[in-house]
Amino acid sequence: MENDVYGRSLALHEDLRGKLEVRSRIEVKDRQALSLAYTPGVAAPCKEIAKDASAAYRYTRKWNTVAVVSDGSAVLGLGNIGGLAGLPVMEGKSLLFKEFADIDSIPIVLSGQDEDDIVKTVEMIAPSFGGINLEDIAAPKCFAVERRLKEKLDIPVFHDDQHGTAIVVAAALFNALKLCGKSLADVKIVICGAGSAGIAICRLLLESGAKNITLSDKNGLVAEGEPWLTGAQAEIAKLTNRKALRGTLKDAVAGADVFIGVSAPRQLTPEMVADMAEKSVVFAMANPEPEIYPDQALAAGAYVVGTGRSDFPNQINNVLAFPGVFRGALDVRARDISEGMKVAAAKALADLVGADLSRENIIPSPFDRRVAPAVAAAVAEQARKEGLARL
Amino acid sequence: MENDVYGRSLALHEDLRGKLEVRSRIEVKDRQALSLAYTPGVAAPCKEIAKDASAAYRYTRKWNTVAVVSDGSAVLGLGNIGGLAGLPVMEGKSLLFKEFADIDSIPIVLSGQDEDDIVKTVEMIAPSFGGINLEDIAAPKCFAVERRLKEKLDIPVFHDDQHGTAIVVAAALFNALKLCGKSLADVKIVICGAGSAGIAICRLLLESGAKNITLSDKNGLVAEGEPWLTGAQAEIAKLTNRKALRGTLKDAVAGADVFIGVSAPRQLTPEMVADMAEKSVVFAMANPEPEIYPDQALAAGAYVVGTGRSDFPNQINNVLAFPGVFRGALDVRARDISEGMKVAAAKALADLVGADLSRENIIPSPFDRRVAPAVAAAVAEQARKEGLARL
Repeated sequence: MENDVYGRSLALHEDLRGKLEVRSRIEVKDRQALSLAYTPGVAAPCKEIAKDASAAYRYTRKWNTVAVVSDGSAVLGLGNIGGLAGLPVMEGKSLLFKEFADIDSIPIVLSGQDEDDIVKTVEMIAPSFGGINLEDIAAPKCFAVERRLKEKLDIPVFHDDQHGTAIVVAAALFNALKLCGKSLADVKIVICGAGSAGIAICRLLLESGAKNITLSDKNGLVAEGEPWLTGAQAEIAKLTNRKALRGTLKDAVAGADVFIGVSAPRQLTPEMVADMAEKSVVFAMANPEPEIYPDQALAAGAYVVGTGRSDFPNQINNVLAFPGVFRGALDVRARDISEGMKVAAAKALADLVGADLSRENIIPSPFDRRVAPAVAAAVAEQARKEGLARL
Repeated sequence: MENDVYGRSLALHEDLRGKLEVRSRIEVKDRQALSLAYTPGVAAPCKEIAKDASAAYRYTRKWNTVAVVSDGSAVLGLGNIGGLAGLPVMEGKSLLFKEFADIDSIPIVLSGQDEDDIVKTVEMIAPSFGGINLEDIAAPKCFAVERRLKEKLDIPVFHDDQHGTAIVVAAALFNALKLCGKSLADVKIVICGAGSAGIAICRLLLESGAKNITLSDKNGLVAEGEPWLTGAQAEIAKLTNRKALRGTLKDAVAGADVFIGVSAPRQLTPEMVADMAEKSVVFAMANPEPEIYPDQALAAGAYVVGTGRSDFPNQINNVLAFPGVFRGALDVRARDISEGMKVAAAKALADLVGADLSRENIIPSPFDRRVAPAVAAAVAEQARKEGLARL
């Protein structure tokens, strides 16, 4: 069955020869059309933009165009396969931008992986775009690339592997805790995987009110002073694991209310789940093989279970976030995507479930057409509140 | 009337809000489609490309995608207005790629204008593309940018302001000389304007068999040893003006068979035309106001007259070349666009006029649907002959 997906996907890709194409929004069938769409008439919008850069949003497609930029250094579960080999993923991402939010998105895969080169390249090509979606860039480089680009550019920059994941996890957790009758401020949360996604999830949950989070990495629990911490881990260590617990994932999970896995297959055993608090929440999102399979987690006593897979309930899927987040940011011409805008997106996403909330339905379906508009509206409103909107 | 074109073009651009958009080639309406177009299935084409880079041409849109890259340093007659202000032109160019050759083309306008930065940026983003069309980059930087990128990249790189113009001028001249009963090897040619277009026209005419060409610049005639020559002018001086004539444009034009203007308004007077050889050819292509208006040139005795304008016969328009050139190069996955391929394009373009050749019809209409396929076929064939084709 799994092999079948891969074989059929390969055949589909060969058949399509590209999942995207460019479409003209105007026909140029005679000299008059040519003189308006191109020379000499095109000089008029050029002059307007030369006078006032913001006119580019009025006379070109910049307002609706997002670059999906990747160096291919951390593609899906495939690792560092390089930009070119990551192109089918980036085309897929652009496809989803179009499908779910009518955003014109263009895959830009890079030939180099140096941090400075990536930053410089994105800065150089930014004028064509209304936003930059960074994708599948390895940690810790992704943190610096995003931070530097956010400082340099006046358009939104968003590393989806971090923040898209974080938004959807937060939404799912808000709803799961409602079912458990627990409050985010009180629960003990363990995040397995202290890479880009794990750290972003942690930050967004802290921003949303969580107080007790411990991260675990392949080297052990993230705690201040551990010699193996990366820069980003050392920063997050100051805000997490306040009892400075050292040891293994098993130690941290004992008595925890929430397990969030963005790591590797089979990290969480049924015994460890059984050792968690009453009414525990387990989100096991390693892809394609999770930290624990949902049926195993439920059998071991978990109360609400989420997954990255489409063949189980409660799929925590980035596609629930990034189209609406960019739609909202583009709609108000936001200059940035803030933590507040991400929290607003998560809340809007959680609220959509409404009265249908159940242990098997904590998050909307990716194909629920209300999702992107609801997320977009919340993001746009928050951007206005924070003074980040230019429209 | 001229103002009207600008006003209407501005209104059209505001109405369209972008002349291009992205279209999905596959619908993603359910989980199964998502699993094939995106995760987990998309890992299959990624793995194939990781094993063999050329598989990107089979599984992605790379094979049909061309970047239109500009730093906006020499846009139309507007000068250095910067990349962002040039975006309407680049969108227009991409539109024409789609309209005339069904190429998916993406405008990439740059925030910086440094030669090294441009080269590095294009090198970095190249994996997404099957070809690079450089546009509206000022001389002499454009020469170095193109040369360096041609060395670095294994996909075609083509500066249209140079080579597109050169191909169409050459085609028009081949036909004009037939009408005059003169041979390219024998005629005395003066090119007014020794910037990127003038030098590229000169090179392509030399490659096609011309032997007697003199270039003129605002400083005077290009001749070996002149202190004001740029690097590119110094190189071309070794191949032109072999009698080392010094002086003004007027001196060079006296007795000349062919005047080719890619310079500025009103450079050529009726008296100068009257001073040319019998059955002279005048291509006055400065835009929007030419070196001499066609009716004036004809009244002064020119036998065949071409222009850059759409409101006179014999419009020498780049759109006759670049769509077909890239179509042909992409069709055989050429690794470069050689001088031979450009000559082949010019000959194919000239041949299309066939029995309809007349003083008022030396070049096909941009809306003649045979143009791009004929140019593409000639370019592809020549690429194969030269061993530059990979298909």
